[in-house]
Amino acid sequence: MSPILFYGVPSGCSLGSIVALEWLGKPYRLCRIEMPEVASSAEYRRINPVAETPSLLAGSGEMISESLAILNHIGANTAGTGLAFAQGTPGFDRLNQMLAFLNTTFFSAFSPLWFAIEEQDIDDNDKRALTNYGRTLVKRAHAQLEEMLGAKPWLLGAQRTLADAYFIGIARWTRYHDVVDRRDYPNLQRLYDKLEADPAVQFAHAIEGGRAATSSGGFRGEVSLDEALGLLRQAA
Amino acid sequence: MSPILFYGVPSGCSLGSIVALEWLGKPYRLCRIEMPEVASSAEYRRINPVAETPSLLAGSGEMISESLAILNHIGANTAGTGLAFAQGTPGFDRLNQMLAFLNTTFFSAFSPLWFAIEEQDIDDNDKRALTNYGRTLVKRAHAQLEEMLGAKPWLLGAQRTLADAYFIGIARWTRYHDVVDRRDYPNLQRLYDKLEADPAVQFAHAIEGGRAATSSGGFRGEVSLDEALGLLRQAA
Repeated sequence: MSPILFYGVPSGCSLGSIVALEWLGKPYRLCRIEMPEVASSAEYRRINPVAETPSLLAGSGEMISESLAILNHIGANTAGTGLAFAQGTPGFDRLNQMLAFLNTTFFSAFSPLWFAIEEQDIDDNDKRALTNYGRTLVKRAHAQLEEMLGAKPWLLGAQRTLADAYFIGIARWTRYHDVVDRRDYPNLQRLYDKLEADPAVQFAHAIEGGRAATSSGGFRGEVSLDEALGLLRQAA
Repeated sequence: MSPILFYGVPSGCSLGSIVALEWLGKPYRLCRIEMPEVASSAEYRRINPVAETPSLLAGSGEMISESLAILNHIGANTAGTGLAFAQGTPGFDRLNQMLAFLNTTFFSAFSPLWFAIEEQDIDDNDKRALTNYGRTLVKRAHAQLEEMLGAKPWLLGAQRTLADAYFIGIARWTRYHDVVDRRDYPNLQRLYDKLEADPAVQFAHAIEGGRAATSSGGFRGEVSLDEALGLLRQAA
């Protein structure tokens, strides 16, 4: 069985995992999860009890959630690609450090902004406070990442890695939340532009948008949530 | 050279990395970093450009930051202990999934609460909004983790792993931020009590508190930041 990635629309951070699978080049399938309706349904909670995307049904039948765990699972399988590194090597530590920064600081900076938009139960004052808080965090995270990237072609240096895939799934959120002007961060803008032009990223955007999508990797089609649940039952 | 962990006081999430090193049982040293004064100093930024703890100066001379990267580095070295797992195995994925949840959801839930306390530049209305937001996130994270833990002795099952070490460094924050009553989460309370009674956790608390501390692992003493910077220069 080829693995199935459950990706969230609109604009899930799961986009990074789609890009990673495309770059990997091995067979995989996708299952589309509308957020928040389907993501919070009883059916999807059998895939992911905390109702989040991405999740991965691995070829072994194992279910994995959390972007960092999925990317590390993909990373165990990337020998020869340079996308990730063997456990116990300096590259493994550098990749984990960058993924953890992107997760704790870069991804989490947007959380109050999403909350301010999505939560029904908060008043305008609270919404303004959360938006100000999110803006402070997003700016700080951009400034720190701008410095870390410097003049390097990719986040870890000369070669693209899973960190760049994860980055692009989050970086595009500045389009929704008008709290930074990415042109103030020229290194990040350069990386962003290069990634947006990448066939794997263009494929992932087309998949999210429900448009005709051309895989440059091992995409083997979409499956429905029902079909995926059936495969999960068989694997159990 | 034995590795040096830079831990933050008061109450850094670095406590989890101290516990992990104690459990590992191999030689290591500690370097105390007062937050925010020393953590944000030019000297410490040579260790960690984003001014956060923990950081690890590995035996190889490599500098590693971010708890998840440090724990994964320690985890590469734990064969036979059950604390972590080999890359490419289901255990590796399950540990990464739990660490990522603890990082993204459990740790990050407290961020607005710390911000509300530490930031000088916010008014009472904003402080109240951030505290309410943090309370919502901390409650939700506790409820989700309570469910994940269930009746298991440790977060991943029958054996303690690096996830339990990371958990205890964060879980104790509810003492500062009076936003949940842990007794509402009996599974978490049970795990918390067991960990608080663990010699490694008691050692880490004593170290943080500047009290006499008895290592049950490979602790080889504290070094000053100056001394650590000297070793870093030699390693470079």
